[in-house]
Amino acid sequence: MFRAYEKDGDISYSMGAFPTVELIKRRKEDVIAIALGSKLKMTDELEKILESVKDKVVTDDRAVSRVAKKGNVFMVGAFRKRFTSFGSGKHIALVRPSDDGNLGTIMRTMLGFGITDLAVIDKCSADVYDPKTVRASMGAVFSLNISLYDGWEDYAAVHKEPKYLFMLRPCSIPITAVEPPTGNYALVFGNEATGLPDGYAEYGTPVVIRHTDKIDSLNLPQAVAIGAYEFTKKNFTENT
Amino acid sequence: MFRAYEKDGDISYSMGAFPTVELIKRRKEDVIAIALGSKLKMTDELEKILESVKDKVVTDDRAVSRVAKKGNVFMVGAFRKRFTSFGSGKHIALVRPSDDGNLGTIMRTMLGFGITDLAVIDKCSADVYDPKTVRASMGAVFSLNISLYDGWEDYAAVHKEPKYLFMLRPCSIPITAVEPPTGNYALVFGNEATGLPDGYAEYGTPVVIRHTDKIDSLNLPQAVAIGAYEFTKKNFTENT
Repeated sequence: MFRAYEKDGDISYSMGAFPTVELIKRRKEDVIAIALGSKLKMTDELEKILESVKDKVVTDDRAVSRVAKKGNVFMVGAFRKRFTSFGSGKHIALVRPSDDGNLGTIMRTMLGFGITDLAVIDKCSADVYDPKTVRASMGAVFSLNISLYDGWEDYAAVHKEPKYLFMLRPCSIPITAVEPPTGNYALVFGNEATGLPDGYAEYGTPVVIRHTDKIDSLNLPQAVAIGAYEFTKKNFTENT
Repeated sequence: MFRAYEKDGDISYSMGAFPTVELIKRRKEDVIAIALGSKLKMTDELEKILESVKDKVVTDDRAVSRVAKKGNVFMVGAFRKRFTSFGSGKHIALVRPSDDGNLGTIMRTMLGFGITDLAVIDKCSADVYDPKTVRASMGAVFSLNISLYDGWEDYAAVHKEPKYLFMLRPCSIPITAVEPPTGNYALVFGNEATGLPDGYAEYGTPVVIRHTDKIDSLNLPQAVAIGAYEFTKKNFTENT
């Protein structure tokens, strides 16, 4: 089962020790196999974690290199992709994100701010389970509930939460003036290059992170980070 | 002068139309040459901008491919690297950042929030003028004043501004509790993997962006984005 990754398949791969350990810790039931390279430096901690999936561990340099391609990876996990429909709650919705690396770092940031539900909308989006995404997320992908929707209508039929749409429009409300709701909400972001289509403004509250006119727009992962930070910072202030 | 990039050289390259146009607009005096691929789609706007450096423009597919390597780049600029010592002011200081892509996106975010001075500290840092950095900055690098310092002492000898050191320490002040000063300041961030050394806490005010314990730390570009956003948001609220 260790072969080149296919977007349409049911299996994906974690490359390297760190994301593979996260896989075993968070999604043991989805682990299909773990391949170790003969040059892996075994540690007590690693040994203990591998013990919990020992029937699935093989040492196989060729399996590792078939998946990882790069020479400095000595541990690879094969796992079943999992999609979880989540109900009401605070979540992030990405409309047609195009970059796997961005998607991964966004997952990590969400988890950092305690937002564990992610909706990805549009069939042409980047792949939440591409090994590049898994790697960029540093394993955060295994701690999230992820739902895919073919289009906005499918998504909006399920999710009725108040929506905050991050859009660079004159009529958008500056994020500094938004009072995050105490209940559920969705933070919605568009594609890296094109943002959200204008018509989306009517689906909720259009919000803008103001910046100088020296750049066209903030990078997507940075915009999501600032949005997630602003909407959750009260939790961190109250708890500490 | 179009050849493989060298970190120790005086020349670097912008790859692609967007960053090359930014180069010509912002740093005309540093342009050495512009090479166009024969497949470049010329537009009126592009033609007008190239007119301003017309003595330096050549059509040369081999020059383009020597620098860009990838096949989908049809415009390359060669420019002199510029370092500018800046005086007192609000700025961002990065201690040993290790990733060129991160460095580029950080530059873009800084410019977005109106912070145009960047200090990079430590000889082993990522390269502010690597073509990968230039590309990730989407040309923002040409709008910044950038100073390099061999170490903290050299930097601190020049910069006496109040310093806010982003550190995951129990004693750090949550950023939500920090009142940004009205005068000058420096926001200081450490390396992607290791952060700032503990001893740096004494150089100013240690600050933390609180997050859950599900991740070890925020990604560096996201942490810088949130820091820059918090420290500058008053400007954007007042102006609009």
